[in-house]
Amino acid sequence: MKKELYENSKTYTIEEINSIVGGILNKVEENIKINRIASPVDADENTLALAFEERFIESLPHTKAKVALVPLGVSLDNISTIEVERPKLAMMKILHLFYVPPDAHTGIHPSAIVHPDAKLGNDVSIGPNVVIGRGAVIGDNTKVLANVYIGKFAEVKKNCLLYPGVYVGDCIEIGNNVIIHNGASIGADGYSFVTETPSNVETAKKEGKVGDDATQQKIYKVPSLGAVTIADDVEIGANAAIDRGTIENTYIGKGTKIDNLVQIGHNCIVGENCLIISQAGVSGSVKLGDRVVLAGQAGIVDHLEIGSDSIIMAKSGVTKNLPDKSIVMGTPAIPRKEFVKQIKNVKELDVVLKEIKKFKKDFDSIRESLNIENVEV
Amino acid sequence: MKKELYENSKTYTIEEINSIVGGILNKVEENIKINRIASPVDADENTLALAFEERFIESLPHTKAKVALVPLGVSLDNISTIEVERPKLAMMKILHLFYVPPDAHTGIHPSAIVHPDAKLGNDVSIGPNVVIGRGAVIGDNTKVLANVYIGKFAEVKKNCLLYPGVYVGDCIEIGNNVIIHNGASIGADGYSFVTETPSNVETAKKEGKVGDDATQQKIYKVPSLGAVTIADDVEIGANAAIDRGTIENTYIGKGTKIDNLVQIGHNCIVGENCLIISQAGVSGSVKLGDRVVLAGQAGIVDHLEIGSDSIIMAKSGVTKNLPDKSIVMGTPAIPRKEFVKQIKNVKELDVVLKEIKKFKKDFDSIRESLNIENVEV
Amino acid sequence: MKKELYENSKTYTIEEINSIVGGILNKVEENIKINRIASPVDADENTLALAFEERFIESLPHTKAKVALVPLGVSLDNISTIEVERPKLAMMKILHLFYVPPDAHTGIHPSAIVHPDAKLGNDVSIGPNVVIGRGAVIGDNTKVLANVYIGKFAEVKKNCLLYPGVYVGDCIEIGNNVIIHNGASIGADGYSFVTETPSNVETAKKEGKVGDDATQQKIYKVPSLGAVTIADDVEIGANAAIDRGTIENTYIGKGTKIDNLVQIGHNCIVGENCLIISQAGVSGSVKLGDRVVLAGQAGIVDHLEIGSDSIIMAKSGVTKNLPDKSIVMGTPAIPRKEFVKQIKNVKELDVVLKEIKKFKKDFDSIRESLNIENVEV
Repeated sequence: MKKELYENSKTYTIEEINSIVGGILNKVEENIKINRIASPVDADENTLALAFEERFIESLPHTKAKVALVPLGVSLDNISTIEVERPKLAMMKILHLFYVPPDAHTGIHPSAIVHPDAKLGNDVSIGPNVVIGRGAVIGDNTKVLANVYIGKFAEVKKNCLLYPGVYVGDCIEIGNNVIIHNGASIGADGYSFVTETPSNVETAKKEGKVGDDATQQKIYKVPSLGAVTIADDVEIGANAAIDRGTIENTYIGKGTKIDNLVQIGHNCIVGENCLIISQAGVSGSVKLGDRVVLAGQAGIVDHLEIGSDSIIMAKSGVTKNLPDKSIVMGTPAIPRKEFVKQIKNVKELDVVLKEIKKFKKDFDSIRESLNIENVEV
Repeated sequence: MKKELYENSKTYTIEEINSIVGGILNKVEENIKINRIASPVDADENTLALAFEERFIESLPHTKAKVALVPLGVSLDNISTIEVERPKLAMMKILHLFYVPPDAHTGIHPSAIVHPDAKLGNDVSIGPNVVIGRGAVIGDNTKVLANVYIGKFAEVKKNCLLYPGVYVGDCIEIGNNVIIHNGASIGADGYSFVTETPSNVETAKKEGKVGDDATQQKIYKVPSLGAVTIADDVEIGANAAIDRGTIENTYIGKGTKIDNLVQIGHNCIVGENCLIISQAGVSGSVKLGDRVVLAGQAGIVDHLEIGSDSIIMAKSGVTKNLPDKSIVMGTPAIPRKEFVKQIKNVKELDVVLKEIKKFKKDFDSIRESLNIENVEV
Repeated sequence: MKKELYENSKTYTIEEINSIVGGILNKVEENIKINRIASPVDADENTLALAFEERFIESLPHTKAKVALVPLGVSLDNISTIEVERPKLAMMKILHLFYVPPDAHTGIHPSAIVHPDAKLGNDVSIGPNVVIGRGAVIGDNTKVLANVYIGKFAEVKKNCLLYPGVYVGDCIEIGNNVIIHNGASIGADGYSFVTETPSNVETAKKEGKVGDDATQQKIYKVPSLGAVTIADDVEIGANAAIDRGTIENTYIGKGTKIDNLVQIGHNCIVGENCLIISQAGVSGSVKLGDRVVLAGQAGIVDHLEIGSDSIIMAKSGVTKNLPDKSIVMGTPAIPRKEFVKQIKNVKELDVVLKEIKKFKKDFDSIRESLNIENVEV
């Protein structure tokens, strides 16, 4: 852990920290100053020790820290504590105190290439090698780090943070307070193609098999004329990809958080406050409600609608529309409870199949002993 | 939808549009001019309303548009229509009329770093911060957008479009009319390693378990001396990765379309007109025939051969060679029909397992009532 | 295959090559000079023909090559051979002889933007458009290719090779001999969020269903204060993503090889010499032992511990801690042997379910023939 991770961080009294997290302060010592946060093992005397889980609480007698953040009800004799009801929420608040953002000087770096028709707001930071296209608009206080590309007529509103190497295509609309991480692609062309006559996939969908006349025919690109709209407070992970729409804009709702390496296909409408976790994929023209959770490596077939407050568990493959508050699992995805039962049933099969064999043998014996030769009705 | 998405687009008469799509024009009004394409709800009087699906056709009475593109056989009284047999094909043709490409001025941007030994064709566009290595060749009319890297002796032929941040490694060969999207990596090293003595995986493959002497041994990198060849008319999605071969070139056949975040391992030979959809992965040394469809998040184990016209359904994991025209599903992937039957059988288990229990009880009762104590043969 | 792939490569005698691989040399001709390596079909008279597999050995009579690298025990009359016990190991050694690295001139390219407080070692190569932040340290002989971004106080030690477009965040620590490929993101923020009151996922985990009061509540970002530490000899693939830790550093152990498009979540501790293959995903706070193999598209749920020498097979989803030397498969992942048995049992179901039906019929017949009306005990 480099000390530079905390450079410029201020020092806080435990009273200040307690008032920020709204906890219960049990002091065993006065004048404790905090300038860092760590696990009990890595703490020194100016560190707030985080001890939410049993194993960390147990290690508190051995910490050098003089104060620990603990769950409600944990009481200790020889170390001051701040008890909180929702430890992760308290931790979040404290981490924000010490967080050091990336360097981003206000102004335009001399190596940046900003089109004369672009409009930059107040206090923007445009980093080295950034390219900003014709008619693009960058809002107040937005920070655009090195090597970012912003296409023509794109708009990035206020207080955004674009990490190095982000790609923002032509006419993309990005709201306020949006964070986009390294290398994410916003607004590549949708994956949409068409052939003169039905393709293998079209035939297979209709007839259940690939046709006998599967021929080499040219695949034409359906161009993307739509863009992408990203609402306020969205965060998008590293190397994620959100494609532009065919005619309308692909849409990401307010507050939605998208993890690294996620794919959002063209024409998707994603609701508010969704969580789309790493390597999940949403095919084209899918509509997600609000607060949908799409766990890691899950996928959704194109053109589906997923109801609000649904949870798609990790690695699931959704092949049907889902009502609100669905919890699904597996491929094709089914309700979690059914999936769990199926897993159990399949596991039992090993015993059951043996029983059935034994049983048949018994049955045949009975039949024999009864001299029943032909039992067909 | 920003109006700039249509900047510079021309205006067309409906007769012109009809002649382009080869449809049946039913006019209820003269002199209609079209400068945009949209769904019926978003249309204005100069918009061609797209109404392929029932719900859009039903919304036509309320559109402001004066003409709609409809499937063959849809007839309407108070709006002109262009009926077409294959709506997506017609839409593709019309979208090309209005499509506005990214800005790419002919010439070399002053910030681009082009090696003096590189050879540039006529009318190329080399964007800001592009780096082109020693001996690289860029064909006529090819557009290389900002921040692209092209390694030494690489060749990109005519009429290609490389979006920002594409990486093209040393000696890569890219054909004509190829489109590569943001951040795609063409020609990173293959993932290939070797140890002095058999590794855990080698032992496990032979003996079914990890050996007792699993030891910490150095992993040596097998360097990649091959490159990548990409044939004409290929499209490659954002943040996709196609690795270079070990000795020969990894090969992507003519007309193949690769979506975002796809992985193509070293030494793969991909046929013509394949569709490889988002987040699918092809391990090293796989051979795909022509027109193979690899749906989203599917994967193929290394060294396999997949026959032409096969369809690997979404999320499937292929572990065996497949003959032509296979349609497979699941992990390990099996023929789609079998997979569907298995899913059905597993679902039935819940009832069947209960029946079997009941049945055993009945059976025991009979046995008891018959005073058969030992039925073993 | 471009001849430039071998530019500057030296020519070797077969005696020199044999001494490097430690094989058995059977000469049928003197003075053979080798300047290339290829399959028998593509070889010319100065090529070492690789013939490890049967089909290549069979093609040797038709090769133009004068010497072939063959497995121990293969003997041939009319071509010289070098027999080796472990062909891939020998191939690796020979490939290193001919490998031509990317151009990377010693010194700082004039277009690079290196912060005056950065410290560069001896013989470093800093390529075009590279950005190096405040206080960053680059070790001796390290090559940083075009468009790489290195954040403030990051350290990249000796003999590293960073391919174009790599992102190295603030305070990241990278060891010696590390290779990172195009567009990989090292040190984006961890995906970590919290709400004021329990979220849908928290409720679902506790109660098995989404609560009735699922409400739109603000999602707060938990900032990442940790960085990433990458030990010596690690290799990281193109467009992979390794997130920074929340409080401590995410850690990648010595010798571990990470493939393209892999996700390593925040706070993970990855052991030594692990192999993490393309598109695999490791959720936050996972601990992998040493020599763990995570095959393609596999995933691990957050906070798990995976024992050393475990093999997670392709596409598996691990949901539980695993002891050392586990070999698991499926989602949820189970021991490979069980998985294979389950697959077999499910396949058998089709026949068994029919048998059970027939059986019930027979049973009913017997019952009838015995005039047993009510067998309930």
